[in-house]
Amino acid sequence: MIRIIEVGPRDGLQNERQPIATEVKANFINSLVEAGLSEVEVTSFVSPKWVPQLGDALELVSMLPAGPDYSALVPNEKGLERALQTGLDRIAVFTAASDEFTKRNINMTIEESLEAFRPVIERFRAERKNGFVRGYVSTIVECPYAGLIEPKRVAQVVDSLFTLGVDEVSLGETIGVAVPSEIRALIGELTNWPKSRIVWHFHDTRGTAIANVASAMEAGYLAFDSSAAGLGGCPYAQGAGGNMATEDLVYFAERCGVATGVNLEKLAKASLPVLTRLGKPVTAKAQLAALAASSEAP
Amino acid sequence: MIRIIEVGPRDGLQNERQPIATEVKANFINSLVEAGLSEVEVTSFVSPKWVPQLGDALELVSMLPAGPDYSALVPNEKGLERALQTGLDRIAVFTAASDEFTKRNINMTIEESLEAFRPVIERFRAERKNGFVRGYVSTIVECPYAGLIEPKRVAQVVDSLFTLGVDEVSLGETIGVAVPSEIRALIGELTNWPKSRIVWHFHDTRGTAIANVASAMEAGYLAFDSSAAGLGGCPYAQGAGGNMATEDLVYFAERCGVATGVNLEKLAKASLPVLTRLGKPVTAKAQLAALAASSEAP
Repeated sequence: MIRIIEVGPRDGLQNERQPIATEVKANFINSLVEAGLSEVEVTSFVSPKWVPQLGDALELVSMLPAGPDYSALVPNEKGLERALQTGLDRIAVFTAASDEFTKRNINMTIEESLEAFRPVIERFRAERKNGFVRGYVSTIVECPYAGLIEPKRVAQVVDSLFTLGVDEVSLGETIGVAVPSEIRALIGELTNWPKSRIVWHFHDTRGTAIANVASAMEAGYLAFDSSAAGLGGCPYAQGAGGNMATEDLVYFAERCGVATGVNLEKLAKASLPVLTRLGKPVTAKAQLAALAASSEAP
Repeated sequence: MIRIIEVGPRDGLQNERQPIATEVKANFINSLVEAGLSEVEVTSFVSPKWVPQLGDALELVSMLPAGPDYSALVPNEKGLERALQTGLDRIAVFTAASDEFTKRNINMTIEESLEAFRPVIERFRAERKNGFVRGYVSTIVECPYAGLIEPKRVAQVVDSLFTLGVDEVSLGETIGVAVPSEIRALIGELTNWPKSRIVWHFHDTRGTAIANVASAMEAGYLAFDSSAAGLGGCPYAQGAGGNMATEDLVYFAERCGVATGVNLEKLAKASLPVLTRLGKPVTAKAQLAALAASSEAP
């Protein structure tokens, strides 16, 4: 069994210029849950001034049925204030393994970003006894500004996040350039923490995501972020797709004999209303195949 | 260094309903060669009655500049007659690892297809002293009609083809369902012949092709079929894409530190005139990324 953390509603929709009605988002999340996804990152409590697409975070969370593990991105104390107005007990904070990336993205060095998380995590822990905190690390293999990143540097940031008190770390291959040898090199440095506390977040910008999943699974890792229909991705990698499609991940794992708990046919249909509103065709391969198989069924 | 056998002009275009002018095909092949591809399957000498898209095979071959290793599919003695009217010294014959598949596809059992190749190969050897014969085996993991295929059965067909005198065997994962564990299981049965005489032909219908390439490369195989822009694929796998894109393969191999001899930027542009004529968007991921990077360049 692998854990799949569905990030489409947040990571997918935050990068889409087209505004999506809150009700459509809520229905999308419902469909994902009905397809069997039990962990969903639903939104971000970032300033609506910066990401107006997610300005409806409070309203959206209030519309979600209880049951699954919902989480939301919280960039700072102001965001945490809003998150705490909801019933969410999972938050995520984000940094990177490249100072050049954090500076351009959140206007802080890595160290500064870690210091900024400290009061956020402390306050959240105080308010939510069973709270769960995820720490994202972007640019784990290559940064669009600084080039290749040393695996040791990534491991240092992972150490810092765990030391700060996060429950798990999600490792983001932000620009989608990596191949398995690079993932294995990084894995070789991640020896200080149990594998169960690491999640891999691969982008499929150049078609290598599933090969990287395979290498991480072979090394004993069992948790992956992905996005239904491959929605979203990194706005810093111009022109090409981004997120690994949850459909491709589910197909791959199940064919490898590893259960996901997800119904691929239902999942393939879950994103269709959102794609229609965005005016986007279906491009995720396992989604296309599942839709074709389902329409052929008697 | 890996060998890439570009099959887009044949395997890609034979499945497209839209007719493409012979000159456009010749220009396409030229662009592929200029991008660095040195082995190209250019057409098929199948009956124009069955595949009118490739009815211009004689004319097309006459338009190609000397230099690269061109090959063509030859289904029978009649096809060979036409092939021998050209200067081609590479032909390919095709069978499968599933009787159900060959019966529906070429109206013969596997055994009958092998017997039918015998006079074709003998005649070709007599006429072309330096001739090179490839044998295709389809449905190496699963058949759309018969289900899962035993690796031992595939190995038997490979043995038969080599015994018949082919120079190399291309193993086709026709419907694009396989994952690395299945490729490794098959590799475990392929012990009778040198790895250098095996070529892998993966389809990317469900996004697993590059992971399968990775597993074959790790096992020491260094030759792969692919199709520029992912053109074509199996007409028996409805609805979804088929061939692995040469762009994805080139990106992956080069990033793994394995040379291909191919210029990815030139390759990404080579198929654009054909895609335009087919009314198709660019969907291959590494092609999208390369085109985006190239348009960003100053």
